[in-house]
Amino acid sequence: MRVRNNPNANNELLSYDKYIDTADKLQEILSLKENKSKKVFLEIGMGKGDFISKLASLDKDNIYIGVEISKPVLAIATRKIQKFEKENDISLDNLYLMSFDAIKLSEVFKKGQVEKLYLNFSDPWPKKKHAKRRLTYSSFLEEYKKVLKKDGIIEFKTDNRILFEFSLVSMQNFGMTFLEVYLDLHKTDVPNIVTEYEEKFSPNGPIYKLVARM
Amino acid sequence: MRVRNNPNANNELLSYDKYIDTADKLQEILSLKENKSKKVFLEIGMGKGDFISKLASLDKDNIYIGVEISKPVLAIATRKIQKFEKENDISLDNLYLMSFDAIKLSEVFKKGQVEKLYLNFSDPWPKKKHAKRRLTYSSFLEEYKKVLKKDGIIEFKTDNRILFEFSLVSMQNFGMTFLEVYLDLHKTDVPNIVTEYEEKFSPNGPIYKLVARM
Repeated sequence: MRVRNNPNANNELLSYDKYIDTADKLQEILSLKENKSKKVFLEIGMGKGDFISKLASLDKDNIYIGVEISKPVLAIATRKIQKFEKENDISLDNLYLMSFDAIKLSEVFKKGQVEKLYLNFSDPWPKKKHAKRRLTYSSFLEEYKKVLKKDGIIEFKTDNRILFEFSLVSMQNFGMTFLEVYLDLHKTDVPNIVTEYEEKFSPNGPIYKLVARM
Repeated sequence: MRVRNNPNANNELLSYDKYIDTADKLQEILSLKENKSKKVFLEIGMGKGDFISKLASLDKDNIYIGVEISKPVLAIATRKIQKFEKENDISLDNLYLMSFDAIKLSEVFKKGQVEKLYLNFSDPWPKKKHAKRRLTYSSFLEEYKKVLKKDGIIEFKTDNRILFEFSLVSMQNFGMTFLEVYLDLHKTDVPNIVTEYEEKFSPNGPIYKLVARM
């Protein structure tokens, strides 16, 4: 998503105690005694953090890490998370934020370190010539595979038909196994954490969802 | 599809020269000198034959066989095909009809004899307890695999979301490879033979299509 440029975003992030700016710092945190037995859930392209905040608040026993390439967007997320904590009188001490390109995932996480990976309303890159930038393109799947545990799960949600069609074929050709496919998620009774974007755009058409295993 | 009972359907079919009533007769026809190099395309659940008639008329060099379990429905198809031939001033001498249960496909066709298989607007059997009756259930896919050539293709089209979701998972878990997936076929410029049913029901929602390889 596009937001106004914020030259102070990096400083803002560095002053946020749940922001992790290096792979070393991440590994340090994950190897802490209290964290060793915990599972690590990742959202790639967390945007303003709606989804992962709610998810993290529902499962305080595990670790949630939101990845967002845009630092200005991530700076907004830190403010929204603090607001969410205040409003719900909770502390999301299990939620961390990072900023890097998803194609570099394996430079940051170790092999098999991630339990499950969420992709929500990723940029559709609708032009065919930009297909390689879609977060379900094979080069990204290759990267996810490196860091997901054996039989790790990807949950993918979008309102973009073209992206979903592409992702079905891409993930299938990559050899993933589909566990669940929903072509109009809001018409099912599947439990669903509705993101801000989803709330706004779902009246325009169906929300697609796919759960697949590596 | 349900139609009025027609006690005369069997006789009507037997008097139709493109109706094949036994596996032996089928094999006899396929082994004729003029047919040996031709490809065999199959539609399972051809209903009243709209789709396969048009398809057969566009590709007179190959053989089209429509399979329909209901003889009363197939009897209607024979009349519609003759009307179609008259109206378009053509003779569909490459289009044959058969009536049997798709689960018995391999009792009728030999291994690898079929080039491609079409499933159009199959009965969705929406209740979970009836899932085994869906034409994309694994036992049917097993049967299709037996008669399709290596790398044979299945083209599947439906307006039923639940059936399509089920079929995506079923065909994927069966190890098929998706070549094309369309979640709103009429919004694409993919060439499409619109069936009577499709014309009638597409205003109610999207038409889904899947092309997959065995």
